Amino acid sequence: MQPTGNPNVSRETIICTVDVVLLSLKDAALHVALLRREHEPFAGALALPGGYVRADEDEDTESAAARILFEKTAIVSPYLEQLATFSGRARDPRGWSISVAYYALVPASLLELEHHPEIQLLAVDPLKGLPFDHRDIVQAAVARVRSKSSYSSLPVFLCGEQFTLPQLQAVYEALLGESINKVSFRRKMDELDILEPVQGARETGRANRPAQLYRLKQAYRKLLSTTDRAINPD
Amino acid sequence: MQPTGNPNVSRETIICTVDVVLLSLKDAALHVALLRREHEPFAGALALPGGYVRADEDEDTESAAARILFEKTAIVSPYLEQLATFSGRARDPRGWSISVAYYALVPASLLELEHHPEIQLLAVDPLKGLPFDHRDIVQAAVARVRSKSSYSSLPVFLCGEQFTLPQLQAVYEALLGESINKVSFRRKMDELDILEPVQGARETGRANRPAQLYRLKQAYRKLLSTTDRAINPD
Repeated sequence: MQPTGNPNVSRETIICTVDVVLLSLKDAALHVALLRREHEPFAGALALPGGYVRADEDEDTESAAARILFEKTAIVSPYLEQLATFSGRARDPRGWSISVAYYALVPASLLELEHHPEIQLLAVDPLKGLPFDHRDIVQAAVARVRSKSSYSSLPVFLCGEQFTLPQLQAVYEALLGESINKVSFRRKMDELDILEPVQGARETGRANRPAQLYRLKQAYRKLLSTTDRAINPD
Repeated sequence: MQPTGNPNVSRETIICTVDVVLLSLKDAALHVALLRREHEPFAGALALPGGYVRADEDEDTESAAARILFEKTAIVSPYLEQLATFSGRARDPRGWSISVAYYALVPASLLELEHHPEIQLLAVDPLKGLPFDHRDIVQAAVARVRSKSSYSSLPVFLCGEQFTLPQLQAVYEALLGESINKVSFRRKMDELDILEPVQGARETGRANRPAQLYRLKQAYRKLLSTTDRAINPD
């Protein structure tokens, strides 16, 4: 292949994209947010939200991921963590490509059908028929989340803003795939020191003594928000 | 900026590169392998081994990293793990760029001066004056290694092929920056179940009872090799 343009730059154009893996808990199982592709290749297939990095618009690939997620789902600036980069000549029929993948854990309420009719939540296991290497990307995200669940605050981002300790424990158990002793779970949360009780707030709608509600301490909060379109769909 | 070529592809060419962080232990401190840059920008500066991804040659970015490392240092196919991707318009004066960074832990013997006169080993702390965002990349690699050191086999790759348990413990201690109780260290190694004694091999050159030599079990070995040029420099 002949060099084109600047000979110092790779001779064949490399396609630069980003993909976003939004994971949520539904029926105590991890689900991933997928969108139906509008364009070829794989038009009509369910796939991760993703798109081209635009050097003239995006500051970096993380900005590109946030922009594309907003354009496609109206979800604004969720906390996105870089997962890994997937690359090569085989993964995209259009040519040699790089996809920098990002992921975030979001409460299911953020992805509710009435706010985001374009999003389909599919269980991550089993997950079949995704185009490109999107199944590999989702599996890498799930592996990352599971490996971080036993010792980090990550699972808290699957809860809503306020939650009881039993609710939070159920989230950890769903991620780890095993039951956790209640006493050790509470000791672990004490050690992590990331939660604070919400003053005067207790769970409603229970016959027995309502449980204290908790939230992440301010320093750990990574705000998720949606546009008016998403919150108040017409 | 006007679209060029395929309008679906980003309008401005994105520079796609890889960088490699080879970390080693010297005088009980982590060091990084740097090369003096031959070309602009930053010609003459010490920097990470890196270069352009070549879509016409490389299978993926990992292959690109291995190819570039070989071309520049004659080190053949070390085990390279993806670290993270660094991107944006600000990090490279040539334009909007993506660098997929890889890292590996290698025994200091692999980087010895007589075999690789082009490599300079610099202590990672403090590390100043690197071009691009190479300091950030090195710091990310060091943080990754330290976070993995307390529970993984990663530090073993800093040792030579055979080592005594006290030597290995010293490597863990250097990485973690704290002393480890000998009994708990050996229990941890037992739990990990990654080592095997080298039959009949004991450390030589000691007056007292020589210590048993160990190596990684076959399943965990990730071979590092060098070319003849590297092993037998003329």
